[in-house]
Amino acid sequence: MLGTVLYGPGDIRCEEVEEPKILAPTDALVKLSASCICGSDLWPYRGLQPVIEPMHMGHEYCGVVVEVGSAVRTVKPGQFVVGSFCISDNTCPHCLFGFQSSCEQREFMSRAQAPYARVPLADGTLVATPDLPADDLIPSLLAASDVLGTGWYAADAARVQPGSTAVVVGDGAVGLMGVLAARHMGAERIVAMSRHKARQDLALEFGATDIVSERGTAGVARIRELTGGVGAESVLECVGTQESMEQAINCARPGGSIGFVGVPHGVQLDGQGLFFAQKSLLGGPAPVRRFLPHLMALVLERKINPGKVFDLTLPLADVAEGYRAMDGRRAIKTLPRV
Amino acid sequence: MLGTVLYGPGDIRCEEVEEPKILAPTDALVKLSASCICGSDLWPYRGLQPVIEPMHMGHEYCGVVVEVGSAVRTVKPGQFVVGSFCISDNTCPHCLFGFQSSCEQREFMSRAQAPYARVPLADGTLVATPDLPADDLIPSLLAASDVLGTGWYAADAARVQPGSTAVVVGDGAVGLMGVLAARHMGAERIVAMSRHKARQDLALEFGATDIVSERGTAGVARIRELTGGVGAESVLECVGTQESMEQAINCARPGGSIGFVGVPHGVQLDGQGLFFAQKSLLGGPAPVRRFLPHLMALVLERKINPGKVFDLTLPLADVAEGYRAMDGRRAIKTLPRV
Repeated sequence: MLGTVLYGPGDIRCEEVEEPKILAPTDALVKLSASCICGSDLWPYRGLQPVIEPMHMGHEYCGVVVEVGSAVRTVKPGQFVVGSFCISDNTCPHCLFGFQSSCEQREFMSRAQAPYARVPLADGTLVATPDLPADDLIPSLLAASDVLGTGWYAADAARVQPGSTAVVVGDGAVGLMGVLAARHMGAERIVAMSRHKARQDLALEFGATDIVSERGTAGVARIRELTGGVGAESVLECVGTQESMEQAINCARPGGSIGFVGVPHGVQLDGQGLFFAQKSLLGGPAPVRRFLPHLMALVLERKINPGKVFDLTLPLADVAEGYRAMDGRRAIKTLPRV
Repeated sequence: MLGTVLYGPGDIRCEEVEEPKILAPTDALVKLSASCICGSDLWPYRGLQPVIEPMHMGHEYCGVVVEVGSAVRTVKPGQFVVGSFCISDNTCPHCLFGFQSSCEQREFMSRAQAPYARVPLADGTLVATPDLPADDLIPSLLAASDVLGTGWYAADAARVQPGSTAVVVGDGAVGLMGVLAARHMGAERIVAMSRHKARQDLALEFGATDIVSERGTAGVARIRELTGGVGAESVLECVGTQESMEQAINCARPGGSIGFVGVPHGVQLDGQGLFFAQKSLLGGPAPVRRFLPHLMALVLERKINPGKVFDLTLPLADVAEGYRAMDGRRAIKTLPRV
């Protein structure tokens, strides 16, 4: 079958790879309905994360189960499933505490930019829909696997409350999902920090009430202005650079919370600065599995439409163009058909 | 009158200083019932914080109001009051959000190692008792001004819940108050990390269920062992060094919370490490004013006895010995009689 392999910065190839098969009794084999490219795939693509050996890409997935290992109990062939990008057993103490992304048996999914994928720990990782979903819901269900779940976690970690003010730093797909999540959690004012027209429009569609195009100090000043000099209760950090993290911290009010989901690259925090800022920080790879049943239900009931974040669809064979388009910010998020 | 002035590292003097007087209509003048030395006073005393000019020491205080400015409405001469070490108006957005230590008009109290003190923003800062309290309650009421309120905030920021496990890093007076707070908030298991017999004993008296004398990696390993390999829901960091902060973070479980109240000195946090650790951090100067009415009521009802943390009482004139005793860890906390 075809699969996506990253050989080095900028060198992404769609080539013949081995078909996956059941390796452990807890595995499931899934025929993927769609695949996608994640913002985090761009770190190694851009050379900001080392590529030590060829990387089989793709960690967001949904599709129909074709085979399960002998120990799998909760999903069966023929069912449509969505799984988290974090493989988890959903039974260990960390999973039961709602932090499946720190599961004692955690693995990160890979090789899902392909027509088939092997999902380890299927019982703990996959959630099945009651019936086969309508085709037009596939992009939204796929989004639940990571980008939506991650934006949702950012809002959850930033403790978005009904009636509160939330600021979203980062207008990538995760940031836009953060806007959607904050809206769904009842934030009254949602400020999207974005300087790109297409993303601003989508942010407004997902529920943003204000757009701030300034960044850094000017952006922080604008947030202060919008909040009567106070700052926001909740800030969703969806980038992962030193600048974006500082911007996020400075946009929050004292006692406010920052949920940070952009994987930090080169970020250093000064303890004393953080102390006197008096702001709460919680980040990490999103425990998507915690939110998955709820998010899938919202999609199936057509209460949210996160699939709109995909603005480029192309055949898997053209995946390199998908990476280029996201790298050049010509596309927000790419959906390669598998 | 006599007052305490720090001239440089190790050079603390009790000498004649100017008597305070009302300077602003919002001031109150308080005849102090007792004074005390704070662990944070030791940072400049030890030369770990620069002393640019002679520092008038003392920020924990309680006593009887002797005079108020013309705008003061909530306290009057003759009343016994306790105030936070953070001066606050208690009306600005940050105060109303419960973060009085980030008040728009914040000042840090000083000059309270003395018989009299001027308290700015008296209406927002001071809380009066219904009657004059019994003499034996004075140390506990004094504790509410900072050390108890700070330990309480550590437990609050670490989100201590009924039935949960809390670890306290640091066996100074604040750490011991953190133990007391965690107990009062219903933590089922409270681990005090301490290697000093007298402090261990007091920790047990305040409600610790376990003592861990190891530090650093060995201490973290011991906490893991005690929690079935999981880590603690809540960790109270009450020191402020790189080592203690790392110890605190590593003792928490994924999804757990660290409340840090030791003023960080030289602490740097790696963003990516914090991300993958997936632990919540909230610190800062404690918003004691938020907790003060509750803490004073608990003391007046004799439900808590935080005053036990004072294990050295001496005349103000001998304050230098109080600093030396705390610096040498011969005393946990010193109460100079004023």
